[in-house]
Amino acid sequence: MALRVGVIGGGQLARMMIAPAVELGLDLRVLAEDEGMSAGLAATAVGDYHDLDVVRAFVKDVDVVTFDHEHVPQDILRALVADGVAVHPGPDALQFAQDKLLMRARLAELGVPQPEWAPVRDATELQAFLDDHGGRAVVKTPRGGYDGKGVRVVRSGTDAADWFQALADGDALLVEELVGFVRELAQQVARRPGGQAVAYPVVETVQRDGVCAEVLAPAPQASERLVQLAEEIGRSIADGLGVTGMLAVELFETDDERILVNELAMRPHNSGHWSQDGAVTGQFEQHLRAVADLPLGDTTPRAPWSVMINILGGPQDGSLGDRFAAAMAGYPTAKIHTYGKAPRPGRKVGHVNVSGADLDDAVYVARAAAAHFD
Amino acid sequence: MALRVGVIGGGQLARMMIAPAVELGLDLRVLAEDEGMSAGLAATAVGDYHDLDVVRAFVKDVDVVTFDHEHVPQDILRALVADGVAVHPGPDALQFAQDKLLMRARLAELGVPQPEWAPVRDATELQAFLDDHGGRAVVKTPRGGYDGKGVRVVRSGTDAADWFQALADGDALLVEELVGFVRELAQQVARRPGGQAVAYPVVETVQRDGVCAEVLAPAPQASERLVQLAEEIGRSIADGLGVTGMLAVELFETDDERILVNELAMRPHNSGHWSQDGAVTGQFEQHLRAVADLPLGDTTPRAPWSVMINILGGPQDGSLGDRFAAAMAGYPTAKIHTYGKAPRPGRKVGHVNVSGADLDDAVYVARAAAAHFD
Repeated sequence: MALRVGVIGGGQLARMMIAPAVELGLDLRVLAEDEGMSAGLAATAVGDYHDLDVVRAFVKDVDVVTFDHEHVPQDILRALVADGVAVHPGPDALQFAQDKLLMRARLAELGVPQPEWAPVRDATELQAFLDDHGGRAVVKTPRGGYDGKGVRVVRSGTDAADWFQALADGDALLVEELVGFVRELAQQVARRPGGQAVAYPVVETVQRDGVCAEVLAPAPQASERLVQLAEEIGRSIADGLGVTGMLAVELFETDDERILVNELAMRPHNSGHWSQDGAVTGQFEQHLRAVADLPLGDTTPRAPWSVMINILGGPQDGSLGDRFAAAMAGYPTAKIHTYGKAPRPGRKVGHVNVSGADLDDAVYVARAAAAHFD
Repeated sequence: MALRVGVIGGGQLARMMIAPAVELGLDLRVLAEDEGMSAGLAATAVGDYHDLDVVRAFVKDVDVVTFDHEHVPQDILRALVADGVAVHPGPDALQFAQDKLLMRARLAELGVPQPEWAPVRDATELQAFLDDHGGRAVVKTPRGGYDGKGVRVVRSGTDAADWFQALADGDALLVEELVGFVRELAQQVARRPGGQAVAYPVVETVQRDGVCAEVLAPAPQASERLVQLAEEIGRSIADGLGVTGMLAVELFETDDERILVNELAMRPHNSGHWSQDGAVTGQFEQHLRAVADLPLGDTTPRAPWSVMINILGGPQDGSLGDRFAAAMAGYPTAKIHTYGKAPRPGRKVGHVNVSGADLDDAVYVARAAAAHFD
């Protein structure tokens, strides 16, 4: 019988696992939050992943559990492990993607380069950090943030008063130095339970309004030293945290040629969508191989350059289908991936990948195809 | 709402449409012959495609109908068209893939190069053809043959006595000259209902026991003249027969540099599996685009060379899953596609694609990966 891989969460990341699962012969089963979600085709259950009974009923019929997102609570994850369920990534690893304070502390232990940081419990502690770091800093809620939510640039200890007020007793916010970066990069690594790991080439990510807008793969004008350093950081985090499946490490490249870890994700990641069409093994296939403990695939790019541009839903006229058709008609080399979501302003509803021998050409075609959705 | 594409037949060709359908945002629905077939994940109905009521019930909830195979009877297809259903390819085109005598007559009208041929009704007519063609010929049953079945090399008018006996009144067998070919080629073309068509590069196919074993894409050592001629033949057949969706034209290359049409298929075809990983737009995505009347994708190869090798089920020890894992471990650049079928001797259960800059290397890796299944 085919190995049954259960995915908790029915969003587009689970959806994009369907294609490689079919080709690999894996039986993909999804616990979706609602009917009609992105990964609906593979949904075998609908329910709330905060409810242990719901999750237990779902995992009864799978051989390994993985995730569309990092939001499944630790107590649920640990109950599954206690039940003997194979969970990848496991709770011991996933906690570092769920809690940014835990992550900062662990990365410090591992000696991984990162911005200066501190836990802060009130406006006085925050002001003290600001005074030591040029009067500006970034405050983050340790849990639950994504796509720029739960992140705020502050200039005064009182700028995060609302967040401090909402803190539970004993909890803290994370404050980080405001890094003067020249660009953002992302390093992906896939790791099997036994430790086999493969790295993708480091890529450049362009954010707009806190959301990943564009990815250039590999990162243009990256020195050999930078490429190696990014891979070393990625591998040491994957090993040090015991990650299984795909790991994405978001990085700042500073004007003095350092790279510092910004965020982690333990799942396929927006910065790796280019690999679906641009690498021998796409990140969704690689994630499935890793969590199913199958040998990992080659990560070599298929073309010198690949470009990924996200398509955000908006208040345009005409159906999304018509706009996809227009983009296809104009740009036959553009690979269009749709998420089966109703368009809403700012919501990611798909992306475009373009690969080629010339970076400027690839960027032009990807932007022109994506412009049909502006 | 997503466009609903209905596929009649639940084999591996329907299965391999699932991955691109998910990415394109098409709602793929399959009428499978049985439970648990290759394309089971997308099966919305199980039943006999010879039963008009079954087919009518299935197509009620789709926007366009296409096929996993060419076996749906003409009267069923014509009833659907009369009902107003969009059927691609339509019965007027599909009849030429269903009946080899009709095909030969139509290709003759179009002036397409093909082996000498004749309809023969009895041993005397067959002997007359043999006498005119050096004493050897190929006899084919006009309908129902595939993978070498319904094809026989004969040396005497009586060598097909059993087939003549089984003929209905007024029917005939097809006899063709035995072509002295140096190799077999295949040309694929995709065509939309309105006539837009794109061609893939001509490929070399290696048959073993009448079954496609290996494909080299593009065909090595093909002159520019040969490549152009193959494309012209493919396009003129697609246009002349009014094909919609993928068309595969199997060709003989003769020792005097002619190419002659052997067989036709109006669906994704084994000779095009390389394109899943080796071309910007794979044939399964292209077929869906064509039958859904979406703009066609670029057919440029992603690498100088791609090699496809079929995996046939056999009486090996160990599970198919273990053998796939061993192949993956040894050959991380090999793209392995599984059909979700129980292995039986000679049954196609999957294939391996390998792409690269060096043909010999790609052949070596593909054969070595596939050897795990010998």
